[in-house]
Amino acid sequence: MLTLYDSAISGNAYKVRLLLSQLGLSFRRVEKNVDDGSTRTPEFLKVNPIGKVPAIVLEDGTPLAESDAILYYFAEGTPFWPAQKLERAQVLQWMFFEQYSHEPTIAVVRHWVAHLGKTAETEPLLPVKTAGGYRALDVMEGHLARHEYFVGHRYTIADIALYAYTHVAHEGGFDLGRYPAIQAWLARVAAQPGHIRITD
Amino acid sequence: MLTLYDSAISGNAYKVRLLLSQLGLSFRRVEKNVDDGSTRTPEFLKVNPIGKVPAIVLEDGTPLAESDAILYYFAEGTPFWPAQKLERAQVLQWMFFEQYSHEPTIAVVRHWVAHLGKTAETEPLLPVKTAGGYRALDVMEGHLARHEYFVGHRYTIADIALYAYTHVAHEGGFDLGRYPAIQAWLARVAAQPGHIRITD
Repeated sequence: MLTLYDSAISGNAYKVRLLLSQLGLSFRRVEKNVDDGSTRTPEFLKVNPIGKVPAIVLEDGTPLAESDAILYYFAEGTPFWPAQKLERAQVLQWMFFEQYSHEPTIAVVRHWVAHLGKTAETEPLLPVKTAGGYRALDVMEGHLARHEYFVGHRYTIADIALYAYTHVAHEGGFDLGRYPAIQAWLARVAAQPGHIRITD
Repeated sequence: MLTLYDSAISGNAYKVRLLLSQLGLSFRRVEKNVDDGSTRTPEFLKVNPIGKVPAIVLEDGTPLAESDAILYYFAEGTPFWPAQKLERAQVLQWMFFEQYSHEPTIAVVRHWVAHLGKTAETEPLLPVKTAGGYRALDVMEGHLARHEYFVGHRYTIADIALYAYTHVAHEGGFDLGRYPAIQAWLARVAAQPGHIRITD
């Protein structure tokens, strides 16, 4: 059976649970605390040398890390990964945007505000991170005003990757009220067959 | 002909030039200044809504952004992208590591130190960013001490992605002297057929 090293508060981990559920694959969840160093023990670094969740161990014992790489692994050969090369590259474009411009702002602000509480270290960085998060949301709104999904008129792992932290962005104080296209897209994603919530 | 929106100081842009050169593909270079707002003009945002270089315009006029997504597009169907699904996922794992943990530390420190000069805004962040860069280099060293290349015993786009900023990390003050496995790997990458330098 697949083993997912997981975290109930991590949108990155939720992406994997969401896709596996939509594919009907069963897996064992191992909950890790992302704040107490337990993802940096020598034992866990054998699973993921980068020291983060999610990481998954395949049935033959091979570990795989980085949420969007795990999404790719399970999506390939399914409708969640496009049949056309250009569309596959566009899915990756949005997933790299998510990991470079979206997650480090929106997810980090949410984690600071909703889980860790503001500290003397994080408080000065909050305005810059929040502004970066709104820039990412602006990019998404611009695209979704003209497209039903991120790539090729259908739900793919690009949507899963971007849904994970966007739908809980309000927990970090982001106001999605000014983004009607994002809100309509969030509802389309949540209506997909087999959808589960981050709290499921 | 392909049009690459490029920057001579960007490792992300260099990745694309390096792969295109190794594939023998010709392209037109359009140099953009990454610091004066010229990647955020309305005209350029039509090419790349994320407002960054590199971006490439394909022969049919379709734009594609995000350096590692562009690498994927041109590598698919060539030896630079593995034939096995697990190895493809591992290539993506290392490319997402590069964009999340490596580029935002090593490339950003280099840009601040070597191009922009330290400012009152960047100076306080330098120690944290530098420490993050060394953590990324530690992860690479641990892997390369046991592997000739990042994935599957051969040179792939994972190596191109990680080479781009690692080989100029010293420009940001990083000491690669303590990383013998990285140094040996840098030499192996530079010895690949068709290799070009970032200054070429």
